[in-house]
Amino acid sequence: MIIEGAWRGVAVVYANPMGLSTAERIENELRSKEVPTILLQYADTDLERLWECVDCIVFVMAVSGAVRTVCRFAKGKEVDPPVLVVDDSGKYVVPVLGAHWGANSAAREVAEILGATAVITTAAEEFGYSSVEDIAKLAVAKILNLRAAVKVNGAIVRGERVCVDVPGLPREALRGNFDFSGDQCEYRIRVSDEESDDPNTVYLKFLNVSLGVGAKEETTADVVEEGLTHVLARLGLSWSRVTKLSSIRRVVSEVAEKFGVPFMLFTTEQLESVDWTCLTPPPVS
Amino acid sequence: MIIEGAWRGVAVVYANPMGLSTAERIENELRSKEVPTILLQYADTDLERLWECVDCIVFVMAVSGAVRTVCRFAKGKEVDPPVLVVDDSGKYVVPVLGAHWGANSAAREVAEILGATAVITTAAEEFGYSSVEDIAKLAVAKILNLRAAVKVNGAIVRGERVCVDVPGLPREALRGNFDFSGDQCEYRIRVSDEESDDPNTVYLKFLNVSLGVGAKEETTADVVEEGLTHVLARLGLSWSRVTKLSSIRRVVSEVAEKFGVPFMLFTTEQLESVDWTCLTPPPVS
Repeated sequence: MIIEGAWRGVAVVYANPMGLSTAERIENELRSKEVPTILLQYADTDLERLWECVDCIVFVMAVSGAVRTVCRFAKGKEVDPPVLVVDDSGKYVVPVLGAHWGANSAAREVAEILGATAVITTAAEEFGYSSVEDIAKLAVAKILNLRAAVKVNGAIVRGERVCVDVPGLPREALRGNFDFSGDQCEYRIRVSDEESDDPNTVYLKFLNVSLGVGAKEETTADVVEEGLTHVLARLGLSWSRVTKLSSIRRVVSEVAEKFGVPFMLFTTEQLESVDWTCLTPPPVS
Repeated sequence: MIIEGAWRGVAVVYANPMGLSTAERIENELRSKEVPTILLQYADTDLERLWECVDCIVFVMAVSGAVRTVCRFAKGKEVDPPVLVVDDSGKYVVPVLGAHWGANSAAREVAEILGATAVITTAAEEFGYSSVEDIAKLAVAKILNLRAAVKVNGAIVRGERVCVDVPGLPREALRGNFDFSGDQCEYRIRVSDEESDDPNTVYLKFLNVSLGVGAKEETTADVVEEGLTHVLARLGLSWSRVTKLSSIRRVVSEVAEKFGVPFMLFTTEQLESVDWTCLTPPPVS
């Protein structure tokens, strides 16, 4: 599920009371899947900040109203979050921004939750396959060369064989003619820190995974380990991908040591002094 | 049919060859309904001019792609044309701009043509009724006070009785609790040249209807009269609404005289010297 990887969270924004119950259904179901979800009313919402801070926005309102809003904030394919629109009655889920950047998949998942129709309007033959963008999301990685991504997506849609060399990728989640056993394909997707000049190869750069752990004073190392392992499994990541663990609880260092991950101990004062616009956005501006 | 009143025309814009046959189906069916329709490929299109010059734009492409385009041109509710998006395969028709300004109705009509689903995402209870904007379109009139329109639309949706005093309106096309026999309602829609200060009354100002007639040299007055009467019937207008007839053919003056409409005779040179951006947009920029 693409939407389960939305670790920065999903914002469900409803415009008027008629949409509240649909918005609440989405919120509850996503929370039950452990997706961090916030429910907001349009009027009270600092949309500019949400735009920067969440992995997906779901507007519960009319498409034509949402489009006017989207136009105020959209900046570009690589930076905008996927945006879905659900009508008040929860009949349709329409990806209105970032179709190939997760919005199609997210729409299908939200539609399943609601028993609604996912209005997928990208070419039908595209939708049956995992795009390069989907693969990057699943790998928690960044696409270094967007131009090759367009070519490789074309190859995927045409059903051509594409060699994929991305360690740890959940292969069962991919749909397409992918070859995981070598690089003897015309088109390739591989991990690299730098883009090379092969125009038929998409280079993915793994993002750093730095985990901050909040815990009660009495929490044991076992519980911390269990929680972290559970979260990593949901994101499809192994411990080897974790580049840092941090906490105000010293007990977390035991887990870090066990898995060979650098640990940083913070004080409450240090945490409180952090000034970053995307820290858990409060529901009301 | 709202879309039949699109006398300035409908532009069908397809993005790639996969959408061409769907775009052509829409074009052919609209033309068969005598709606002036042009078919254009996205890449060749002067969208900025289309935006100003047509009564409806139908994009055949993905919603998320169309939204980026819409964002470049949208200016405001009162000035933007209704915009629909149809996916390449012609499965969905989504009103993405101007839902209440004709896009919902137009989407339903295009969906009927294609055997597609009209993805109406405004509140379901709104959609069953004719909005003030629909009524203004049917009357070929302009809404003078938008604020009252919001209130009266609310009353229509709630099923409250609304008094309508708009001569020549095709009553059978209206859905709602409308009273055509008087003005003893809390909410009213009426024709006026100026807005008064009643906040519960929508004032519609009739637009001037000026008809320019092109004809072959040998065309008779009877044929001109028949053609004009046919067009006026399609627009739901009586001869009394026509404020001017003009042509380079003197024979048209006979029809003007018969119906008591002022006539203007132009020369070919005068016509050719007209410089206005919206004169029949050529399909390629």
